[in-house]
Amino acid sequence: MSMGNSIGVAFRVTSFGESHGRCMGVVVDGCPSGLALSEEHIQRELDRRRPGQSRITSSRSEDDRLEVLSGVFNGRTTGAPICMLVWNTDRDSSGYERRRWTPRPGHADWTAHVRYGGFNDYRGGGRFSGRITAGFVMAGALAKRLLDETLGIEVIAHTKEIGGVVAREVSSEEIKARVEESPVRCADPEAARRMVERIEETSSQGDSLGGTIECHALNVPAGVGQPIFGTLEGDLARALYAVPAVKAVEFGLGGRFSKLKGSESNDFFRVEGGRVFTETNRAGGILGGISTCMPISCTVTLKPTPSIGKQQRTIDILNMEETTIEIGGRHDPCIVPRAVPVIESMVAAVLADHLLQAGLIPPVLGRDEK
Amino acid sequence: MSMGNSIGVAFRVTSFGESHGRCMGVVVDGCPSGLALSEEHIQRELDRRRPGQSRITSSRSEDDRLEVLSGVFNGRTTGAPICMLVWNTDRDSSGYERRRWTPRPGHADWTAHVRYGGFNDYRGGGRFSGRITAGFVMAGALAKRLLDETLGIEVIAHTKEIGGVVAREVSSEEIKARVEESPVRCADPEAARRMVERIEETSSQGDSLGGTIECHALNVPAGVGQPIFGTLEGDLARALYAVPAVKAVEFGLGGRFSKLKGSESNDFFRVEGGRVFTETNRAGGILGGISTCMPISCTVTLKPTPSIGKQQRTIDILNMEETTIEIGGRHDPCIVPRAVPVIESMVAAVLADHLLQAGLIPPVLGRDEK
Amino acid sequence: MSMGNSIGVAFRVTSFGESHGRCMGVVVDGCPSGLALSEEHIQRELDRRRPGQSRITSSRSEDDRLEVLSGVFNGRTTGAPICMLVWNTDRDSSGYERRRWTPRPGHADWTAHVRYGGFNDYRGGGRFSGRITAGFVMAGALAKRLLDETLGIEVIAHTKEIGGVVAREVSSEEIKARVEESPVRCADPEAARRMVERIEETSSQGDSLGGTIECHALNVPAGVGQPIFGTLEGDLARALYAVPAVKAVEFGLGGRFSKLKGSESNDFFRVEGGRVFTETNRAGGILGGISTCMPISCTVTLKPTPSIGKQQRTIDILNMEETTIEIGGRHDPCIVPRAVPVIESMVAAVLADHLLQAGLIPPVLGRDEK
Amino acid sequence: MSMGNSIGVAFRVTSFGESHGRCMGVVVDGCPSGLALSEEHIQRELDRRRPGQSRITSSRSEDDRLEVLSGVFNGRTTGAPICMLVWNTDRDSSGYERRRWTPRPGHADWTAHVRYGGFNDYRGGGRFSGRITAGFVMAGALAKRLLDETLGIEVIAHTKEIGGVVAREVSSEEIKARVEESPVRCADPEAARRMVERIEETSSQGDSLGGTIECHALNVPAGVGQPIFGTLEGDLARALYAVPAVKAVEFGLGGRFSKLKGSESNDFFRVEGGRVFTETNRAGGILGGISTCMPISCTVTLKPTPSIGKQQRTIDILNMEETTIEIGGRHDPCIVPRAVPVIESMVAAVLADHLLQAGLIPPVLGRDEK
Repeated sequence: MSMGNSIGVAFRVTSFGESHGRCMGVVVDGCPSGLALSEEHIQRELDRRRPGQSRITSSRSEDDRLEVLSGVFNGRTTGAPICMLVWNTDRDSSGYERRRWTPRPGHADWTAHVRYGGFNDYRGGGRFSGRITAGFVMAGALAKRLLDETLGIEVIAHTKEIGGVVAREVSSEEIKARVEESPVRCADPEAARRMVERIEETSSQGDSLGGTIECHALNVPAGVGQPIFGTLEGDLARALYAVPAVKAVEFGLGGRFSKLKGSESNDFFRVEGGRVFTETNRAGGILGGISTCMPISCTVTLKPTPSIGKQQRTIDILNMEETTIEIGGRHDPCIVPRAVPVIESMVAAVLADHLLQAGLIPPVLGRDEK
Repeated sequence: MSMGNSIGVAFRVTSFGESHGRCMGVVVDGCPSGLALSEEHIQRELDRRRPGQSRITSSRSEDDRLEVLSGVFNGRTTGAPICMLVWNTDRDSSGYERRRWTPRPGHADWTAHVRYGGFNDYRGGGRFSGRITAGFVMAGALAKRLLDETLGIEVIAHTKEIGGVVAREVSSEEIKARVEESPVRCADPEAARRMVERIEETSSQGDSLGGTIECHALNVPAGVGQPIFGTLEGDLARALYAVPAVKAVEFGLGGRFSKLKGSESNDFFRVEGGRVFTETNRAGGILGGISTCMPISCTVTLKPTPSIGKQQRTIDILNMEETTIEIGGRHDPCIVPRAVPVIESMVAAVLADHLLQAGLIPPVLGRDEK
Repeated sequence: MSMGNSIGVAFRVTSFGESHGRCMGVVVDGCPSGLALSEEHIQRELDRRRPGQSRITSSRSEDDRLEVLSGVFNGRTTGAPICMLVWNTDRDSSGYERRRWTPRPGHADWTAHVRYGGFNDYRGGGRFSGRITAGFVMAGALAKRLLDETLGIEVIAHTKEIGGVVAREVSSEEIKARVEESPVRCADPEAARRMVERIEETSSQGDSLGGTIECHALNVPAGVGQPIFGTLEGDLARALYAVPAVKAVEFGLGGRFSKLKGSESNDFFRVEGGRVFTETNRAGGILGGISTCMPISCTVTLKPTPSIGKQQRTIDILNMEETTIEIGGRHDPCIVPRAVPVIESMVAAVLADHLLQAGLIPPVLGRDEK
Repeated sequence: MSMGNSIGVAFRVTSFGESHGRCMGVVVDGCPSGLALSEEHIQRELDRRRPGQSRITSSRSEDDRLEVLSGVFNGRTTGAPICMLVWNTDRDSSGYERRRWTPRPGHADWTAHVRYGGFNDYRGGGRFSGRITAGFVMAGALAKRLLDETLGIEVIAHTKEIGGVVAREVSSEEIKARVEESPVRCADPEAARRMVERIEETSSQGDSLGGTIECHALNVPAGVGQPIFGTLEGDLARALYAVPAVKAVEFGLGGRFSKLKGSESNDFFRVEGGRVFTETNRAGGILGGISTCMPISCTVTLKPTPSIGKQQRTIDILNMEETTIEIGGRHDPCIVPRAVPVIESMVAAVLADHLLQAGLIPPVLGRDEK
């Protein structure tokens, strides 16, 4: 039984590819026909995810040129499944053979080995590599475009915390204006400066850092989401946990609710010009699993990159004995900045799915009878 | 499109019923045949969830007698879907008609109204009532029994925090020994005492409290979980967000990872007697979405009960104008203690689903050829 | 793994119950909110399926009074799952214990025994009884009402053949006018007369007959259906094969296409008043899996009732030796007439599912803001 | 809402690609890890489907070289999704622009146009081309190998009828021995000769022929299949209706049951050497939707190729007026012989899915710890 590689009902994303295989790809089924698909737009999102963008990310070179294999005709989506991929080039797999039997702490090497009886492609983490998120970003870029074109929905994210350095509260406008200028994709410039310092310092020690990303979806209409098991929160969380390293997903005040009273937690309703909204947005735009029309707001915590330069204790699976490992290579000392477009992508894909389910995005965008 | 009322692939739970309708029920499809189904066991779990257990829970009387309508024959599951329900009795719906057009802050009244065009059963929150978790507990009790009988897996939870009162770290043994003795289901007796005080104080102010539950699944074998979109974390989170009031779901160190370095986050592998384990369990028993064989550990934050005695600002939907609301009735000042068996139930149902998918629990338990 | 008890994506039907258990029931998830649910209408469809309607059906008494347990409020659907059931009464299970280890030829006794390790409820066929179709009819009646109210779609069927007696071609009008007057639900009165004779003759020999039902869905708009694996034909066939005894499902000319040329098979397009149609309807209203706007027409063959009075060879499972069996009881000598409303129900449920998926039926029918 | 491009639960096939797009491809999710994947084996099946194999098939040249993009490592499946495709080469799309607004009778041109608002890729039938079955065959070849390696299950088919020429009953051995020698893939050489004549004669008239394929799965163990909505019959039928031109799917005696009595329809049970079987196999190896251990036998009718040389009446969509069309190009006068490996593929894919669901094929084949 394996349904793990697909997500979504009405906007369904199927992922394939391995880190050191031929490609990383994705098939999107259910995208409405008639959407103007811009390869440049998708490429731009891929570029945001790519390593080597600044001195604080991995210096690996990944070209990641988008290829669209199906589902698009005359510049528009046809309603057929859209297969997109990036070819893998210049993968150096030499180090992995040697390390095959010594699982790296914090990585999926050991669990993948058990799960697949040792047949898994272990090179570069194989199917469990962070590189899989290239596919997420291609699907997410498509979803973002769909949300924007049909309903003016924007999905934006920025880095809230890295290694204990916390950004101040920022507005959506600040995020939109500043996030791409910042090497850590943090909309608070002062915090961003300190985050960079913290990363450089930690990196020089051969260590890595975790952090937190906050993400907002603006202009989502009220009434979106399925009750009970198909809540917006549940479906978003499931998608966000697909991003390697994510270990916490919260909505609105999230974990802080445990310290509050009801009178400090409820959002009071208001009405203005016939439009209902709430005074505050502690609920993160979701009540009963359904959108309130306030921004959908979630927070995601990523653990530190498990690949660190320090010596670590592990085991030799073949001989079932204890050993140590030192991991070389060019790893991101902090994956959080590069994860920002990935988090946006997952949120966009889930919202596209729910808006199609709700009938708020139609299955055909216009008519082509030129 | 509505897939919201079912969850799971191989152990599939479908929920039905409303707070003030005829019943609360559940259909479980995929439970292996041959499991000795104990109605007393399920009833006991239902009783743990019931209000009126102590002075700090709602004094509402809910009898909640289990009825098994299908799928069981001669005391064993047959492999056919198991329909279970509790009849609703003595529901006083009088107050709800009056409040129909004034959505309660923090509740799903407004979003349900928009989602269903006003046709939703609004009495007592209808489909969005916490009472829906009675169905979750029936399904969860079945899952717990299945996990225990086949693999010796135990799912245990306790209250970690209420309104800022945090329990100390406790062992699994402490949880098992103490949780049912504690009126707040907290395994740290000293913290439990202060939690009770905090609840009583807050309740007397007409206010409510949120809190945090930690849950552990013991003896889960390694290699369980689907990669990518069907991770244990993602599927557990999706199920846990079905529990009303949950606003954060974390695994292992969860949100704390944002303050740590890789050298403080990785769990080192060890081997003893041919069995692999990790020195620490910061990952919460999951790497790459797949179980490591360490306990699966998650933490769930519930927001404070939105029904409070204080006056709150809301709107009159009919006239689209602002108004206020005061909510009477017998509400739990803190839902966390009663949510403990519910959280366990969701974790158990997801694990049963994944273990069946993995083939680690067979679809038939033995043979009946007496 | 067991997903067998649910069908549909947007209009999802989950079946539960056994022939000699407490009830036969169904949960329908995804029915739009705001539909006026008429219990009488559903009861009427249940009555059409009930045995004892004439001298050529089983004389068993099944009261089959509809109970609606959830999802309806103030006479309208709420958008929540609708649980409906009929209680089983006066089931005589005495004969089954004796026959437990001797599977009846043509029934599912043997396969169910293997599939469930002997734990299946074997009384009266248990989960595999034709009685399960009571649930199908409840769901189908709801679907019919939904199709009719929103789009004026009608689903009609009649008996085309019984035991080699074939009805002449009849129009939709004839079906609507005559089917309920006929004891065999055949719209050709002359054929119906001969069918009755054939059944009586065969019944008197302790034997049974198979037959064919044709079903039409009128007023289905063009463009409904998913390409490739979610074709109308495929989804209808899957649902129709859920009806016990169905062994062939055909669309349009069906099996007769094997004897024809392309020039005799294609339907030519016509246009009148801006509306496209085809001169003939050999395709049964479906091209590429998608509706053409012509009536959806399918034909279903049911095998003869396997319960016959004659002695049959079978095995004793306990001792793994050959034996014989004679089946008494009150069985339908021909199930076809009672299957007519069941076939209509499956077609209606699948069409409701596809029309909801296509957005042609909205998830909310109007607004309730009285 | 579009789930149309995927099928299966445990062995899940997702199709992508268009007739005149870049490629035809498929992603298979759920294939167990450790299967030795032979590209030659898959290529051989692709070659069986390819046009230009004899004088009675289309003379179009389709190279169809298999490319495996993911999921295989060191010659074995890894448990990750397997993406396979064939690149489209030398597609002449020139004629299609001209014909865009005049839908071909019997093709999906009109329904696809309505379904996708005119945005569909209409060249060569686009997504609705018979060429899509190249993907089915790649997935099916993988499934066949899996079935054979693990359980010795063979899936074989041959042409039963073309244009009224019916083959005599043949044994499985005859099918295996003769089908690839026959230009029409019919195991009855005498009938095959007449089928060829009939095709040549019809082809010379600019016309086409339909026919029937019978397919058998040998060595399927008893107890496979889900009850009710997930029957073997229903799931096989749904998959088979994905093959363009299929209009009837029958099991065992299929449509012939309508002329029989119960005493002529039931298969009597026998036991020999502790193994249960039936004297006859009128049920096609399935009772109650579950395998009996006899061969699974189904019959599929394909309508004649709709592309014929004769002038046909159709409409001009742009001007909504009636017109005529003549279809040139190199079309198969009878698609049945080339459909034989496609039908086998669909049956194999569904059986692989059900055997994985039943736990009879494990998710990991052995262990790789060399």
